[in-house]
Amino acid sequence: MGSLHEGHLSLIRRALETCERVVASIFVNPAQFGPNEDFAAYPRNETADADLLSVAGCDLLYAPSAADIYPPGFSTTLTVAGVSAALEGEARPGHFAGVATVVAKLLIQAAPDVAVFGEKDYQQLQVIRRLVADLDLPVTIIGAPTARAPDGLALSSRNAYLSELEREVAGRLNGVLAQLAADVRAGQAVAPAEERACAALLAAGFDAVDYVQARGAEDLARLGPGPLAAPARVLAAARIGRTRLIDNLAV
Amino acid sequence: MGSLHEGHLSLIRRALETCERVVASIFVNPAQFGPNEDFAAYPRNETADADLLSVAGCDLLYAPSAADIYPPGFSTTLTVAGVSAALEGEARPGHFAGVATVVAKLLIQAAPDVAVFGEKDYQQLQVIRRLVADLDLPVTIIGAPTARAPDGLALSSRNAYLSELEREVAGRLNGVLAQLAADVRAGQAVAPAEERACAALLAAGFDAVDYVQARGAEDLARLGPGPLAAPARVLAAARIGRTRLIDNLAV
Repeated sequence: MGSLHEGHLSLIRRALETCERVVASIFVNPAQFGPNEDFAAYPRNETADADLLSVAGCDLLYAPSAADIYPPGFSTTLTVAGVSAALEGEARPGHFAGVATVVAKLLIQAAPDVAVFGEKDYQQLQVIRRLVADLDLPVTIIGAPTARAPDGLALSSRNAYLSELEREVAGRLNGVLAQLAADVRAGQAVAPAEERACAALLAAGFDAVDYVQARGAEDLARLGPGPLAAPARVLAAARIGRTRLIDNLAV
Repeated sequence: MGSLHEGHLSLIRRALETCERVVASIFVNPAQFGPNEDFAAYPRNETADADLLSVAGCDLLYAPSAADIYPPGFSTTLTVAGVSAALEGEARPGHFAGVATVVAKLLIQAAPDVAVFGEKDYQQLQVIRRLVADLDLPVTIIGAPTARAPDGLALSSRNAYLSELEREVAGRLNGVLAQLAADVRAGQAVAPAEERACAALLAAGFDAVDYVQARGAEDLARLGPGPLAAPARVLAAARIGRTRLIDNLAV
């Protein structure tokens, strides 16, 4: 979606490790914003973005207009059940249908051998893995690790919204998630650990917590009781003022 | 969906006019049948189908199982708004989502240059044209004319359900549609012409009429008053006993 930072550029470098040529898309996709979300205000900086991509070694920038992607009469929606239902899917109705539809279009248009998505949007990554498998799209999806500031804050274009004070609070999200991951890894009961993490976020200065949960890493289903049977992931979304931040870590 | 007749074989011949190699799929798609429809009873005849395709010059038959198309965990649905809402979409909720999802998969799997669909399922053809445009699938869709029995009955695998008496009634559907098309072409008011067509079907021996309507040929929207501004199409679905037949004609 542009307004590029080091996290995006790390995706270009990851792609260059595997591929001879790399194309990046920049598209602030109206279909994945809800009516009360920040579509109009979302930071845009196309000229600087193009320079950053060029320096990082990206061969081609594809920056379509909304009318290129959704011409008059456009009527198709792709929905992915299951993996997109909870967490961001619950907090942002229609968000993943918007993501899935545009990503399917971009993958069909560009027909890449490999596509790199950041783990920062972990649920999005799993939705994309699912739709690529379900539609038999001939592309290998690679998840790339989240780029972080020194205090652990996941890099995000939305961090630009934060005041200095808010930025300090934001840096505590990662530590709370790391504690939750450690608790789950140690075999502690999941629900109380999640409650402790939620309380810790509010104590750290977050104004609201949309969710902070441990879930199956592949299908994002709730964890059953007892020892972990498969890889798990901890994920959170929390608000400071009008800014909503998400993050996640492997358990 | 197999149980092939001359209508299907005409699609193979149409493809051979344009293409060097032709692949046909046979898949009775559970996702496009409603809970009270004839999925289990739908006529299947794969050995005879393979022979017919071979004689017609088809190079490859792709006959996947339901588990090939929908493996465990499959979660993706493609919906096409607008063109799939009325007519069959109203009579058969979920039908076109099932069609669109499987057709997108088949087109992505086979990656043909050209795909031929029969005008017999005219609304399906328009849904497929829409989804191919919307997803930017690199395939040219060709609509092929409906193959008919000497009395005008559109060939259909479901005609096998008809008793001798029902078969005679079925043959009158095409004539009623031709009269409606002539009325609309002549500039007669659409709604009364549709009502006359409905009454004519019931008088001809049909037990129920799901719809008999004139609509825009591309978007299948209702026709406005006054002279036709764009190509139109007449479409009908009617029942004899437990058999449901559809047909359509250009205006």
